[in-house]
Amino acid sequence: MTVVESRLTGPVRVVGVGLLGTSIGLGLRARGVDVILSDASPTNVSIAVDYGAGRGATDGDEPQIVVVCVPPDVTASVIVRELSAYPRAVVTDVASVKKPILDAVIAAGGDVTRYVGSHPLAGREKGGPMSGRADLFLGRPWVVAGHAGISYQTAAAVDDLILDLGATLVEMTAEEHDSSVALVSHAPQVVSTLMARRLAGAPDAAVNLAGQGLRDVTRIASSDPELWVQILGANAAPVVSVLEEFRADLDRFIDALADPVAPGSRRSIAEELAGGNTGVARIPGKHGQDRRFASLVVMVDDTPGELARLLTEMGEIGVNLEDLRLEHSPGAQIGLAEIAVLPEAVERLTAALADRGWRIAG
Amino acid sequence: MTVVESRLTGPVRVVGVGLLGTSIGLGLRARGVDVILSDASPTNVSIAVDYGAGRGATDGDEPQIVVVCVPPDVTASVIVRELSAYPRAVVTDVASVKKPILDAVIAAGGDVTRYVGSHPLAGREKGGPMSGRADLFLGRPWVVAGHAGISYQTAAAVDDLILDLGATLVEMTAEEHDSSVALVSHAPQVVSTLMARRLAGAPDAAVNLAGQGLRDVTRIASSDPELWVQILGANAAPVVSVLEEFRADLDRFIDALADPVAPGSRRSIAEELAGGNTGVARIPGKHGQDRRFASLVVMVDDTPGELARLLTEMGEIGVNLEDLRLEHSPGAQIGLAEIAVLPEAVERLTAALADRGWRIAG
Repeated sequence: MTVVESRLTGPVRVVGVGLLGTSIGLGLRARGVDVILSDASPTNVSIAVDYGAGRGATDGDEPQIVVVCVPPDVTASVIVRELSAYPRAVVTDVASVKKPILDAVIAAGGDVTRYVGSHPLAGREKGGPMSGRADLFLGRPWVVAGHAGISYQTAAAVDDLILDLGATLVEMTAEEHDSSVALVSHAPQVVSTLMARRLAGAPDAAVNLAGQGLRDVTRIASSDPELWVQILGANAAPVVSVLEEFRADLDRFIDALADPVAPGSRRSIAEELAGGNTGVARIPGKHGQDRRFASLVVMVDDTPGELARLLTEMGEIGVNLEDLRLEHSPGAQIGLAEIAVLPEAVERLTAALADRGWRIAG
Repeated sequence: MTVVESRLTGPVRVVGVGLLGTSIGLGLRARGVDVILSDASPTNVSIAVDYGAGRGATDGDEPQIVVVCVPPDVTASVIVRELSAYPRAVVTDVASVKKPILDAVIAAGGDVTRYVGSHPLAGREKGGPMSGRADLFLGRPWVVAGHAGISYQTAAAVDDLILDLGATLVEMTAEEHDSSVALVSHAPQVVSTLMARRLAGAPDAAVNLAGQGLRDVTRIASSDPELWVQILGANAAPVVSVLEEFRADLDRFIDALADPVAPGSRRSIAEELAGGNTGVARIPGKHGQDRRFASLVVMVDDTPGELARLLTEMGEIGVNLEDLRLEHSPGAQIGLAEIAVLPEAVERLTAALADRGWRIAG
């Protein structure tokens, strides 16, 4: 693997080697950065070191940056301790709420001229050091929640770390961050949990009819309650605000559905459903639809070599394949290849493939 | 493909060749059944015939079974018409509500000694004949909503059709069916829609932080409003009942979160989250796992022709590609091709590809 030179000038100390801490270590090691790992559990440090995420701490370490990756309810106190232990380091954290942590660091007398909070919007269902991935942050947003107490120049070191890990730097105030994640992460967690909770006492015959829709809506309801009590408790006011708006919509929906033949009821229900369409369309890079690319569907005979021939001919036509999804149904004589290409190429490719006898299905 | 003998003794007429109708046709054709296709749109019939789902209708057709696969609000009237047009056929439908349709067929004087409603719990995001798949129903529950007006012997033909398609037969009353799908399908649709609706007026900066959790919770919010107005309107009372229970939980949750430091608040929030864990654990089957196939991930250089070369070499090795998903991260020099093959072929393919110098990532 080619090592692209890091933007950082000194070692990075990672405190807490769970999924995020280990992934940060792996990503920075791939850039050749000296990574120092620390954790309340020596076993976790050993695992993360063996995994290639960095080395153990030694006396005399002089980190340029300390990244605090511990649970939300101890994040502020660990930040204050690290600010004091490494008086020349810039300290950041990765907790999913920002304003309460900044307030707590200030209240505890931490030197906020060297602290700036941050939050990578990345994760996996599995936690722990063995779930770490060097590419966990690739292309994901990573918020830096700047504040008046730190200079632009000092905070720039954290920007460098984020860019080293391939993430997309997003600047926001701590308040903007907290209300944004209340909407796109914390309220959806509550809604998913409460929907799943309705299944707890349901008859077996009913839950046995569950399909992919229910699975998707309730997937995050399997999240760790201990972690989420901390997150929701720390960001309570913004989350309550979103949930109250949701409840007002729900009240209106129930009213319309309780009397579906009343004048205006069906229209009101249709408008709510259309509003859901509008909302989901705003999510960037959503399932199966990446707006950077245009797609076309080509019918491919279900015989060996046909897909290879299609891709070879695309190469001859000179259009690069950006993504591909193949579907074929046992028993059907044809499969469907959904091809994603750059938007400017789709028209030319469609015409050229049709000229060569390919059937375009959409 | 080996044709396993069908349990049916005569032709099957499918009325409405959208996703479900076409999939039923494909599945029955794979069993050698004579399938007659009918649709308000002659274009759809032509597509479905070309796709291999059956043949067009002719005078003198004598179907053993008619399967009505039209939108919910016209289902009852089409059932009555088909009962009358084919006085020796057993008629069923696949609409997602059952009691209101049975009531409407009775009210219109339809011969319910030959009608039994059914509902396959299967679907895809995309509709239309081109989305049809012979294996759409494989292993999925398919409810038959029996009633006192039809004999066991007559209804057995519909059981045979369901078993021919590889689905799991589930017997319920129409009322049980409707309250079950209110819980596992219709209420989740409303919850997903209302969560997505909150995004409609949100700042760009907030929606840009969206992650997989929000995508999953809101995926079905992109469903067709026109279809869902019909479904929810037809099953209003059972859906309202689930939504009212959901609202009572939500009220309690908001109360606890509005004052998270009050005695008992954190415990109450933790209990709701744990209740969500319990509920989601009751859903049978695992997410995103197609147990018929094994998969391996091959690293493919992001240069034109590489994927075509991989597929060509798979053909040379003599292993058939069952499904393929390509992922590549913008900026990364490699893409990942996730290849699904029959479980018995995966070991041989992995070894043969490695011999030819391909890097296997998992």
